[in-house]
Amino acid sequence: MCLSKTVGHSMDKSITLPPDEIFRNLENAKRFAIDIGGSLTKLAYYSTVQHKVAKVRSFDTTAKEAPNDKLYEISVQEEVTARLHFIKFENAYIETCLDFIKDHLVNTETKVIKATGGGAHKFKELIEKKLGLNVDKEDEMTCLIKGCNFVLKNIPHEAFVYARHADSEFRFQTANPDIFPYLLVNIGSGVSIVKVESEDQFERIGGSSIGGGTFWGLGALLTKTKRFDELLQLASKGQHTNVDMLVKDIYGGSYGCLGLTGDLIASSFGKSATADKEFSKEDMAKSLLHMISNDIGQLACLYAKLHNLSRVYFGGFFIRGHPVTMHTITYSINFFTKGEVQALFLRHEGYLGAIGAFLKGAEEDNPNQYSWGENYAGSSGLMSVSPDMNPMQRARSGTFDMLEMDRLERQLVNLPLLQDPSSYIPDTVDLTEDALARDYWLYCFEDALDGVVKRAVASQPDIPEAVVRAEKFRQKYRHKLLTLRHQPL
Amino acid sequence: MCLSKTVGHSMDKSITLPPDEIFRNLENAKRFAIDIGGSLTKLAYYSTVQHKVAKVRSFDTTAKEAPNDKLYEISVQEEVTARLHFIKFENAYIETCLDFIKDHLVNTETKVIKATGGGAHKFKELIEKKLGLNVDKEDEMTCLIKGCNFVLKNIPHEAFVYARHADSEFRFQTANPDIFPYLLVNIGSGVSIVKVESEDQFERIGGSSIGGGTFWGLGALLTKTKRFDELLQLASKGQHTNVDMLVKDIYGGSYGCLGLTGDLIASSFGKSATADKEFSKEDMAKSLLHMISNDIGQLACLYAKLHNLSRVYFGGFFIRGHPVTMHTITYSINFFTKGEVQALFLRHEGYLGAIGAFLKGAEEDNPNQYSWGENYAGSSGLMSVSPDMNPMQRARSGTFDMLEMDRLERQLVNLPLLQDPSSYIPDTVDLTEDALARDYWLYCFEDALDGVVKRAVASQPDIPEAVVRAEKFRQKYRHKLLTLRHQPL
Repeated sequence: MCLSKTVGHSMDKSITLPPDEIFRNLENAKRFAIDIGGSLTKLAYYSTVQHKVAKVRSFDTTAKEAPNDKLYEISVQEEVTARLHFIKFENAYIETCLDFIKDHLVNTETKVIKATGGGAHKFKELIEKKLGLNVDKEDEMTCLIKGCNFVLKNIPHEAFVYARHADSEFRFQTANPDIFPYLLVNIGSGVSIVKVESEDQFERIGGSSIGGGTFWGLGALLTKTKRFDELLQLASKGQHTNVDMLVKDIYGGSYGCLGLTGDLIASSFGKSATADKEFSKEDMAKSLLHMISNDIGQLACLYAKLHNLSRVYFGGFFIRGHPVTMHTITYSINFFTKGEVQALFLRHEGYLGAIGAFLKGAEEDNPNQYSWGENYAGSSGLMSVSPDMNPMQRARSGTFDMLEMDRLERQLVNLPLLQDPSSYIPDTVDLTEDALARDYWLYCFEDALDGVVKRAVASQPDIPEAVVRAEKFRQKYRHKLLTLRHQPL
Repeated sequence: MCLSKTVGHSMDKSITLPPDEIFRNLENAKRFAIDIGGSLTKLAYYSTVQHKVAKVRSFDTTAKEAPNDKLYEISVQEEVTARLHFIKFENAYIETCLDFIKDHLVNTETKVIKATGGGAHKFKELIEKKLGLNVDKEDEMTCLIKGCNFVLKNIPHEAFVYARHADSEFRFQTANPDIFPYLLVNIGSGVSIVKVESEDQFERIGGSSIGGGTFWGLGALLTKTKRFDELLQLASKGQHTNVDMLVKDIYGGSYGCLGLTGDLIASSFGKSATADKEFSKEDMAKSLLHMISNDIGQLACLYAKLHNLSRVYFGGFFIRGHPVTMHTITYSINFFTKGEVQALFLRHEGYLGAIGAFLKGAEEDNPNQYSWGENYAGSSGLMSVSPDMNPMQRARSGTFDMLEMDRLERQLVNLPLLQDPSSYIPDTVDLTEDALARDYWLYCFEDALDGVVKRAVASQPDIPEAVVRAEKFRQKYRHKLLTLRHQPL
């Protein structure tokens, strides 16, 4: 981890922020890809960054060669590494963003931009006119799967299980080199259910028209609320039992001999069929969310069983890290499979198509030969679009969301001595899962900060701006620790 | 077929009609069962009827015994046979009906009424108070399956395939003694999916909260139309493409490489998410109907595949013979199974629970030892609640619907010489399937009517009221033929 990078910028993002906050390293951008969905655009570019890297040389103290009895020697070297940038913004900003890119692009050799998603067709001319690049369309599903395979293999802690009331809400999965076969349930406007068997082999085995667009569309008609996130916020406050007909509403209790508990929903919106009263927006939104999540959950389970798959990943804009959707889908999967199948979510599900499109364009570079790691400092957190955040934060983070990935110069491989790499779990402490340990370590880091700053200033007595720089570092580091307290992800 | 029975009463039914039109043979009722659903009550009773049966005695002309050179001799005998009556009415009329039954019940020995359905609990006290019978509750699912097995085995042409635009809209299935295993998808307020393996062995393998209650409930919220049949009527006039997001709305055409045609629904209600306009009630109702039917169709297919079942029967109040629901479910099944599974509907799906409850109470009588045949004259037709009928007809037939079944004194069995009874198809002409033949034969019957009436009058020269009776017969018979022209089922 490179500290100077970690604290190098704040998390603020908005259309008026200075350019280097959003489209970072754009001047060195080498290659572009874009994924335009029904409402969101995801732009990817590949760029290079200069690092200062500290090289440590150790001396063997038993030998006589050690100068001045030093144990080690530190030298600072400049290194150029590759970085992938992903930016997500609403389609409404696409023209502004394209203009911005055109103005700041200094030195690019590429003539082509890979494009995917339903909107690639619609915005083709605009992109070609603004950027002067040829739009090269790639199949949406191929990009999606390519991107999914990539993040599952390359990003540590990409997949997680969601458990709302557990001690650790998010249980991250250890990266597993054997990712195949798996089922991907992509919940966009509609639902696509894809069986993925290998890097290049996948099949859309099912789908449903009851998806995110249905929640949005029916929700808008029922509640007159036009914004997706607001609908989810309504849902998180509602009581579905006021609208749904439960098993106990029919039988006066559970339907024992069939194993149906009284609280089970017998009929979604069943109570609004005959009751002559007004239903609250919150209750209707919640009922709708349950209806759709349960349905998708059941379909996913049935396809998983039919094709003998035990890993089911959920992605698409319906999810977007919203606790309330993840909870209902997880609940539904547990209910229908009696725990045999686990619902897994992806931290970067929104970028799968863009990553895939980018990889299609970069195939000659063999990106799979390298290891990639997320640059957490340049990326937005998982919860950046959570409806539970205050409206100000949401408005900003909803506008721009970022992911950065650094290429590691040597590919990380499993220790060759490991008998079964997929079942090996290193004995590390995960601070996202252990709230007590997290508190303790964050306190330690904060406590040690003054000492670190003092030592940093002392180590560079000849450099006049050292004190100012150290103070800057202190502020940004403290801010980061504060952020980690509230958003440990 | 007993002609005097066939034309013995009109099809009119309403709460103000004379008693013998609705609760026929109530005075001889021996045993009762009742199935109370969320909105409809189905009452069953077992009674006896007196027939005049013509016995024909043939004479061997080669023998010398034939008196007066007659070839045969007809004698009329009185015969008492068993009949099952089923009556369906809205729960709103339950009190009136119970009062009526109490007043007209002359001679019943039973002390018990078998009751099933979600409402059995709710109306228990009322029934006990009004009828003075003990309510004996039976499990709903057990009754449903028992009734389903019974109609599939006993009622000719019970199951049919629906094909809206085909020459014969209804393709009736030849009764098959090997009915097991099959899948029953019962669409009431919610959906139950039941695998039936034998007379006593069944399992609820799945279900869904998106059922008839969802269509009704969401439909009522969206269109402010409170009546189920009116919602279906709205749906039959709507264009779902105005509300749903189709594949071509996203991709500008079909999504070829996935085999998705442009007209496929990508997202139900997807257009109402962002469009800032009013949607018509008809279009929303149609979209809702498609959404629910497709979903049920897909679930049914998946469960059928998982359990290796090729026969799927659909029942429950969501169906009720409505062409528009049967069409969308059939379409959905064909789409999802590529024709491997056929959607089968039942003519008497509404009575399955009542029939089952009745059979539970009649187990000592061994009803399966006998053959039962539908008394078409005393039963409402398949289309009696079709939304395409004129409102006057609908209002009446929606109130009371009837099914009568006569017990045949000898059990009908398959010809023992048949090697495989289930694959034997007798070479008969089915007038419901052949419109030309139907027209021809109905014309023949009408044409011959005057001759029949003349001969009838001539055969009873000593009976003064013969002319009047024959004239009455002529009118009723002609009316029946007319009905058959418009409702061949």
